[in-house]
Amino acid sequence: MIIRRELQLRVRELEEALARERGGGQGQRARIERMSPEVKDSNPYSRLMALKRMGIVKDYEKIRTFTVAVVGVGGVGSVTAEMLTRCGIGKVIYIFFIKQKSNTDKNIENDENINPDVQFEVHNYNITTVDNFQHFMDRISYGGLEEGKPVDLVLSCVDNFEARMAINTACNELGQTWMESGVSENAVSGHIQLIIPGESACFACAPPLVVAANIDEKTLKREGVCAASLPTTMGVVAGILVQNVLKFLLNFGTVSYYLGYNAMQDFFPTMAMKPNPHCNDKNCRKQQEEYKEKKAAQPKQVVVEQEEEIVHEDNDWGIELVSEVSEEELKAASGPLPDLPNGITVAYTIPNKEENVVAGETTVAESEESLEELMAKMKNM
Amino acid sequence: MIIRRELQLRVRELEEALARERGGGQGQRARIERMSPEVKDSNPYSRLMALKRMGIVKDYEKIRTFTVAVVGVGGVGSVTAEMLTRCGIGKVIYIFFIKQKSNTDKNIENDENINPDVQFEVHNYNITTVDNFQHFMDRISYGGLEEGKPVDLVLSCVDNFEARMAINTACNELGQTWMESGVSENAVSGHIQLIIPGESACFACAPPLVVAANIDEKTLKREGVCAASLPTTMGVVAGILVQNVLKFLLNFGTVSYYLGYNAMQDFFPTMAMKPNPHCNDKNCRKQQEEYKEKKAAQPKQVVVEQEEEIVHEDNDWGIELVSEVSEEELKAASGPLPDLPNGITVAYTIPNKEENVVAGETTVAESEESLEELMAKMKNM
Repeated sequence: MIIRRELQLRVRELEEALARERGGGQGQRARIERMSPEVKDSNPYSRLMALKRMGIVKDYEKIRTFTVAVVGVGGVGSVTAEMLTRCGIGKVIYIFFIKQKSNTDKNIENDENINPDVQFEVHNYNITTVDNFQHFMDRISYGGLEEGKPVDLVLSCVDNFEARMAINTACNELGQTWMESGVSENAVSGHIQLIIPGESACFACAPPLVVAANIDEKTLKREGVCAASLPTTMGVVAGILVQNVLKFLLNFGTVSYYLGYNAMQDFFPTMAMKPNPHCNDKNCRKQQEEYKEKKAAQPKQVVVEQEEEIVHEDNDWGIELVSEVSEEELKAASGPLPDLPNGITVAYTIPNKEENVVAGETTVAESEESLEELMAKMKNM
Repeated sequence: MIIRRELQLRVRELEEALARERGGGQGQRARIERMSPEVKDSNPYSRLMALKRMGIVKDYEKIRTFTVAVVGVGGVGSVTAEMLTRCGIGKVIYIFFIKQKSNTDKNIENDENINPDVQFEVHNYNITTVDNFQHFMDRISYGGLEEGKPVDLVLSCVDNFEARMAINTACNELGQTWMESGVSENAVSGHIQLIIPGESACFACAPPLVVAANIDEKTLKREGVCAASLPTTMGVVAGILVQNVLKFLLNFGTVSYYLGYNAMQDFFPTMAMKPNPHCNDKNCRKQQEEYKEKKAAQPKQVVVEQEEEIVHEDNDWGIELVSEVSEEELKAASGPLPDLPNGITVAYTIPNKEENVVAGETTVAESEESLEELMAKMKNM
């Protein structure tokens, strides 16, 4: 009987410890029906709702009506999902492809504990295969908080070209606004990019150079070779990504079309790129036509994007560089300077590579070109 | 007997669940004697050590020899400590003043689980009282990884003027290099600042305007009034702070003396400020003399700081603005423009306040001046 009592006590002790671990030390909080601005310890939303009182965001509660799909769950993706959760987003659709799922499960469970008001939908598959790609398209189209409605935004936090191209293809076809993010192989630069199909350059119009350089993804996994990673760079990129999401969804501040981060110099270039009328993606070209028609049909209406728009007279690329990197700054950063056409500069530099390796075939998009071929093509356009 | 066996099974089940919770899903990993660049799943340092192979950091392992004191454990402080832990810092001394310690305990335990190679020393007290201030000074002086040696860096992640002034006073007295961080009350701007006593402006030489404005701290806690907070802004500020720490300790890239973050415009101003020869803090003035003498005694030696140094001929303030905010940009941001002397501009704007409230008396430093008085003083210097 003594043993039994001891065991019973031990069970209780362990159950309590487990509850503490799972619930942030105090047991998981109950769901909250309505976001309140009330300032008391039991209100987890008071400091977010303060944004409203301070005149930053008109209607912060609206955050709960939005669904964001996060593709990729590595250094940037996991921090991104946690930030969205802490901000009180309505629903997160997590899509990732990972074999060892234990840490990811733990992350998702952690997010659920952080904010039980957020809905989670989780898919573990490779979006670049035909079947999964179709399922991915379906979830973007119908996975919104109100089932049957599309998601509000797709975030790309993947680490490879194929997956980015798959997201790009899907979003062009669906006319789905998305944001792309990336961190360089040497971990000291990164970027985020807002892509509104038809309105701003898509990923196939002008892929960021770090990707255009076609660094063979397989080298990252080769024995003795792996990409560098810094929690700091990941945190900054996730932070500027989710900040851009909040500004876009809640309509405050200036949403960045492109924001780069060069950690070596603490340099943060911004720019905006018009879509390429000769983009390889036919759905991008179709979206461009539709956007033009829409704009032409509403000539007097004040559209936010029109206010933001910048006119470029001195290059055919429709590329506007709000801030430019000098040659010296570039040389001071790591990596060689690629040979670029006039009017294009790089957002950040890429690690020194002996040669540009041709990327493997992709399921959903053409990417068999080397950097030289891509550049030559762009020059001849 | 059946009950006993069931209980035993339940105990084992719970113990395993608890181990999973505490250890990121796989039980806590064993300590690692030496950082290895080897690329295999069991090596948590392979992607950090890749920074060395990629030519970014000469000697990444050196990170394990450093001790960093983190003061404050709120939105910025907790993320800062976690990032340092993930980066494999040698030792973290946590100093904070918080009544409800359960969440903080959970954070610290979490950090210990993330990286059991990191040493933690935790103090929960208010550094602005006389006794605690002395203890704080002692831990900065003798709390290094090798007991008896000073820490390598102090990070201020506090949310109030008094605590910042206490850290400033201590670091000026000890000649201790530190970095300050802050997020504005409206949560959409922040900054980090490197302070090398005698060499760059200390916190009393030219306190950041958000603090100089002497926003009454008590308003933050008043019923119905609280400062806004955004996980995104906190993450970006913590990210640029720890990135600056890595660059400073591991000697790569350009260490920023000041880096601001305006989230509304995605604007990141940098600047460097020389110390004020008339600084109120006598130890700051003493450190300035010592720095001058040191520099004069080593005229031929190439010092990194000399390379970075910028000569200012057109203002008496010794203030160099590497990038400037235009009036328009300021107006577009929130808050009114303070009346500033020539040659000084603000890094970010402050929320609209009816009047500048005089700060309460501090234990360790003078801060009874209003913004007007501070500005008048600066003008008359």
